[in-house]
Amino acid sequence: MTNKDVSPRPEARLPKGLQDISAQEIRAAEAMLATIRGVFERYGFEPLDTPAIEYTNTLGKFLPDLDRPNEGVFSFQDDDEQWLSLRYDLTAPLARYVAENFQSLPKPIRRYQVGHVWRNEKPGPGRFRQFTQFDADTVGASSIAADAEFCMLAADILEALGIERGQYVVKIGSRKILDGVLERAGLNADDKSKHLTVLRAIDKLDRLGIEGVRLLLGSGRKDESGDFTKGAGLEPNQIQAIVSFVEAVGGDRDQTLAELKALVEGSSVGEEGVAEISAMHDLLSAAGFGSDRVVVDPSVVRGLEYYTGPVFEAELTARIKDKRGQIVRLGSVVSGGRYDGLVERFTGETVPATGVSVGVSRLLFGLQLLGKVQGDAIEGPVVVLVFDKDRLADYQRIVQELRTAGIRAELYLGSSGMKAQMKYADRRGSPCAIIQGGDEKAKGEVQIKDLILGATLTSIEDRAEYLKQQAVAQFAVPEADLVTAVKSVLARQKA
Amino acid sequence: MTNKDVSPRPEARLPKGLQDISAQEIRAAEAMLATIRGVFERYGFEPLDTPAIEYTNTLGKFLPDLDRPNEGVFSFQDDDEQWLSLRYDLTAPLARYVAENFQSLPKPIRRYQVGHVWRNEKPGPGRFRQFTQFDADTVGASSIAADAEFCMLAADILEALGIERGQYVVKIGSRKILDGVLERAGLNADDKSKHLTVLRAIDKLDRLGIEGVRLLLGSGRKDESGDFTKGAGLEPNQIQAIVSFVEAVGGDRDQTLAELKALVEGSSVGEEGVAEISAMHDLLSAAGFGSDRVVVDPSVVRGLEYYTGPVFEAELTARIKDKRGQIVRLGSVVSGGRYDGLVERFTGETVPATGVSVGVSRLLFGLQLLGKVQGDAIEGPVVVLVFDKDRLADYQRIVQELRTAGIRAELYLGSSGMKAQMKYADRRGSPCAIIQGGDEKAKGEVQIKDLILGATLTSIEDRAEYLKQQAVAQFAVPEADLVTAVKSVLARQKA
Repeated sequence: MTNKDVSPRPEARLPKGLQDISAQEIRAAEAMLATIRGVFERYGFEPLDTPAIEYTNTLGKFLPDLDRPNEGVFSFQDDDEQWLSLRYDLTAPLARYVAENFQSLPKPIRRYQVGHVWRNEKPGPGRFRQFTQFDADTVGASSIAADAEFCMLAADILEALGIERGQYVVKIGSRKILDGVLERAGLNADDKSKHLTVLRAIDKLDRLGIEGVRLLLGSGRKDESGDFTKGAGLEPNQIQAIVSFVEAVGGDRDQTLAELKALVEGSSVGEEGVAEISAMHDLLSAAGFGSDRVVVDPSVVRGLEYYTGPVFEAELTARIKDKRGQIVRLGSVVSGGRYDGLVERFTGETVPATGVSVGVSRLLFGLQLLGKVQGDAIEGPVVVLVFDKDRLADYQRIVQELRTAGIRAELYLGSSGMKAQMKYADRRGSPCAIIQGGDEKAKGEVQIKDLILGATLTSIEDRAEYLKQQAVAQFAVPEADLVTAVKSVLARQKA
Repeated sequence: MTNKDVSPRPEARLPKGLQDISAQEIRAAEAMLATIRGVFERYGFEPLDTPAIEYTNTLGKFLPDLDRPNEGVFSFQDDDEQWLSLRYDLTAPLARYVAENFQSLPKPIRRYQVGHVWRNEKPGPGRFRQFTQFDADTVGASSIAADAEFCMLAADILEALGIERGQYVVKIGSRKILDGVLERAGLNADDKSKHLTVLRAIDKLDRLGIEGVRLLLGSGRKDESGDFTKGAGLEPNQIQAIVSFVEAVGGDRDQTLAELKALVEGSSVGEEGVAEISAMHDLLSAAGFGSDRVVVDPSVVRGLEYYTGPVFEAELTARIKDKRGQIVRLGSVVSGGRYDGLVERFTGETVPATGVSVGVSRLLFGLQLLGKVQGDAIEGPVVVLVFDKDRLADYQRIVQELRTAGIRAELYLGSSGMKAQMKYADRRGSPCAIIQGGDEKAKGEVQIKDLILGATLTSIEDRAEYLKQQAVAQFAVPEADLVTAVKSVLARQKA
């Protein structure tokens, strides 16, 4: 059975949920990723690249339904009929890599990886089917020092990106402390469903406030639209214990830990959790990461069904406004935690692991709103215009002189006239254009036209002032002074 | 119909033709790509990223056979049953992008792109199903200056990577000049099959020499194994014309062009070809790219069925030896040419285009053999050992001090004893280890162990000399002098 394309001209378009990335976005992302890479390198992490394609069962998915092979992940069959998939995260390939190479790798394994991942899900605003992930993990280390390090890393990354101290906070939570609080409150540890309801209620603290959480822990809550969410049905004293737990967040780590210690007293899992976070606190303090950067916040309950120990997330706290002046809540930009199941499905053995993931697009968006984007320092090229088509070689010589001096430059390569060439230079974001007509050539000169200053001239109403500024914006120099003159134009534009 | 995985433990392995990339290779590739990017930026090219997935018909493939959807490209169906594929090069996505955005883009369009591509072909040694491509194209410029620029770019890229002038050559060929020679020799222009046989014969010059080419142009050639390849069956005077054409390659571009001009005299297509290459020659000379860097070589007939004008390729000419001392012929490391069919299949209109592709893995291999790899300057981290598990905070403080000073450093995060920790530091390529036991702590000191110098000590037979060197390799400093002492160890290792 074949199915040949008969349409003579395909439409030029992208499938839904996929996008082209512009030069500006690429440069901003590259600069950000390079900075993050630098911090990971400084911390002793090594880069690793795995391919985009893995065996479907390696990725921890069941073999797909043949009728819908692309549910969630993009899948296809190899020549030998085995199912392959595009990776949907960087953790599953790491698990395969670690299981495959465990014997030969120095342990603990410290690796970071940045790359595209693909999700075959319904795309939406800001949700794409291809996006970039940046992960770092330490595998084979049960030491709590590995977790503390990721909190330091998160803070150092944000500061390396130009986010000032006080504009972000790293929050540490713990599943074990929460379990201890629930145990002390008399919740049956085996009632997973009630535990999940409690988790979900805590997770809504940001949005509903503590009173909303109280209702969700108790009888339930009716929202503005009248919809009713059933509560966990806890007793008042149980609710109070959880509320005290959630509210035990403060600037000072010592104080928060003291409150938490009191709340879990007598619960062995709870005390273990407090001891872990206390150990992290000591390491953080020794390394100079005080409560102004890293706090203990029990309301951090991210993905607790996946993580097995401390969890952490970094959040931008600066009041970030979008173009319309609205305050934007970005949520966490770096997050992670400890998990034990990494390679167990391959080897049957539990290997301790802890890791962190940078929310690449969310963090980049935050940097843009804060005006902290790097990499946009690359400006458009100086464009050497083609005044006389027979003198291309002269113009090429000028271009080469600029390039040799390290100046971004190009020869206009189209076939249009001077007006269109000027428009082209403008659209390329060119700082200045170089023109050499017959008159200039005869005098051994070139014209330099400052396109940034030139664009402001039309707003000058006074004729004398206009002429004066015009002379600054467009002027002739001897050919020998070309590079110096262009450099001075670039310098005054940056001033 | 479903097909669930019943095996409890998947095997941790990669599908054939796919590979993990090590830290060392990643760093070498990143450094090379960054250098190449820098040159493209200097020439005024802008980066573009397109997604890995496109509609199959956008990529110029017919919709796949439903029984073998992955022939050549990896394909899968979207929810709406439309066929999607992983890109197999960066040119087809560029064509889609240009056709989709033609009206809104400044023209000519100058873009570069680096990214993974996927080919569902039989993998072999050095042949993978995922690899990196680096392309740059100028679209919408019929000017020969665009072609000349790519030859300059190829030379500048190789020099930026540390390959010296004289160790590489950029060769320019032309389909039009070849057509002129064949026309003058009396070959029927419509006999595509005979043209192709001639092309293939010329393409074998490198391997068979000019006598082999003569045989293939004539009656045919028997190789060492006795296999006979049928020839093009040309007349002796036709063969001589083509041989003169192929041999018209020389150091001096002026001279080569004069010879070619004589060979095509009277053929309008041939004269047009010579005029084009002459114009490129003038531009190259004006920009200072002499015959020591860029030559005219008619034997360059790469993919002439695809290209429509000048073609060019850069080759490393240095005598490169592999590990076993064998001379390696790398072939072209940068190549490209002019082609007109780029967006025609979408829009029906011919848009002139010329482009270049960097052979990423081949070039990297060449740089490795030439000892010109950049990016391996990153050495292993300084490892702070855990002598006493109760004093983690002290060790963490030391790590942080090193990191703050910009030194790559890490705390040993495993649970093994000192001997295993030293082994770990060695395997990480660590320049030195930091140790602080109880004695040192009491004296306010730290021990620094130079692992590079330390590794050489066992070869010293003289006891006095051994002790002297050992004192240099491992020594104690006051805590306050830690950073200075580590920096001096790093500096002496680099000296």
